[in-house]
Amino acid sequence: MVNWSSVDKAAKEWLKEAGKSIVASFETALQIDTKADANDLVTNIDKEVEQYFTSQIRKTFPSHNILGEEGFGDEVQSTDGVIWIIDPIDGTMNFVHQQRNFFISIGIFENGKGKLGYLYDVVHNELYYAISGEGAYWGDLKLPMLEKVEVSEAVIGLNAMLLTSNDVKNPLISIVKDVRGTRSYGSAALEFAYVATGRLDAYISKTLSPWDFAGGKIIVEEIGGVVTDFKGEPLNLLKKGSVIVAKPGLHEKLINEYFQEK
Amino acid sequence: MVNWSSVDKAAKEWLKEAGKSIVASFETALQIDTKADANDLVTNIDKEVEQYFTSQIRKTFPSHNILGEEGFGDEVQSTDGVIWIIDPIDGTMNFVHQQRNFFISIGIFENGKGKLGYLYDVVHNELYYAISGEGAYWGDLKLPMLEKVEVSEAVIGLNAMLLTSNDVKNPLISIVKDVRGTRSYGSAALEFAYVATGRLDAYISKTLSPWDFAGGKIIVEEIGGVVTDFKGEPLNLLKKGSVIVAKPGLHEKLINEYFQEK
Repeated sequence: MVNWSSVDKAAKEWLKEAGKSIVASFETALQIDTKADANDLVTNIDKEVEQYFTSQIRKTFPSHNILGEEGFGDEVQSTDGVIWIIDPIDGTMNFVHQQRNFFISIGIFENGKGKLGYLYDVVHNELYYAISGEGAYWGDLKLPMLEKVEVSEAVIGLNAMLLTSNDVKNPLISIVKDVRGTRSYGSAALEFAYVATGRLDAYISKTLSPWDFAGGKIIVEEIGGVVTDFKGEPLNLLKKGSVIVAKPGLHEKLINEYFQEK
Repeated sequence: MVNWSSVDKAAKEWLKEAGKSIVASFETALQIDTKADANDLVTNIDKEVEQYFTSQIRKTFPSHNILGEEGFGDEVQSTDGVIWIIDPIDGTMNFVHQQRNFFISIGIFENGKGKLGYLYDVVHNELYYAISGEGAYWGDLKLPMLEKVEVSEAVIGLNAMLLTSNDVKNPLISIVKDVRGTRSYGSAALEFAYVATGRLDAYISKTLSPWDFAGGKIIVEEIGGVVTDFKGEPLNLLKKGSVIVAKPGLHEKLINEYFQEK
């Protein structure tokens, strides 16, 4: 029997520690920016953060499995038991280019079911998290359940690159024409956090890896949001694929009226 | 002879005051969200903020002209003399939907030349500003001159809506395919501030009004950025039109290799 409250406490402590170390490394990186390739520096920070979590988890919860973007975790073949799915820096291009708008993302699952989810905006020190069955939070604020919204009133996140295909039946072009507005932030974790707080009504991506959506999926689902692939099927926690996350009602309309017509 | 240092001091004081009042109104607005139309509330706040600036400017600098989004300023027909060009809330949809990512934008011109520019991120209390000939700043930090960047390494801001036309010669589709990445934030002021700080390399919009670009143009030009319409011509301070703002070199390439081919 897992003591989830102690896992939650540990995860939050490690997030704060990792955040501090990212901001520090990142000040160093900025100082030596002209002497080294910014991309290499970031890759090092990505790796260091994942290694930090991996080593803490192995020491504290030795029976837990770890699936991480940088590959320091385990060769996870099934969703049995407890799995931490970690992205040490979600939004790497933002990290390099903007020094903001990047997140640490963690989803913790037990036998494939979401238990604890964390999206941590390191620079603004804002933590979005959920404890399955107990609610989702932005800092100290409990997030309300997500309410239905019409397509014509929705503001959605998606990347402009998805609209450059010549395929006239591209459902995303119709969606962009029909919604109130679109945004693009370059971090799936940020976009999930924005859906959770109602700042976006939906977020659509053609390809996300498990570490891109794991933490966000648990948070959004806890408050009634719907997360599937473009066919309306549940996401596979161990594979990359398409993702639609949206408020209830809106999700159904996007799938039924745009994606399934194609 | 205008005492620019006293104009600068006054503008900064009024921005802080207006920011406080927006955050306060905005907390009230959130509380009564369910009882009234959020759009009306925002319109009221827009108007109140512009009236506040208008009344302060008329009292303190009675010879100055004012061009404001909400129309409380003057019927400005020429760029002679000193003109304040004001957007009380740039990013209104973000204000309503996100309660962040909106700015107060002010550009002050003398006989058509930019003298003082301000972009104020109210929620994060971050001020970007420039004093013509004395440099551009993000808070206390003096911003470095913008450096050249290649198209293939650029991260640019543009709205996905610009890509939905069926016109195969749409230059924006080619740009999106060739750059490193795109972002969209829903506030021209934010996107100008991001170009000024190097978080974006360029920002492209098909239609901006003078109050959308006035403050940003002064800041970006102060540090070597280039701001024109899609034809490469200088912006008209009294008319709306297309806008490309970019780092030097990149701006030339976008105009010559994408827009002029069309």
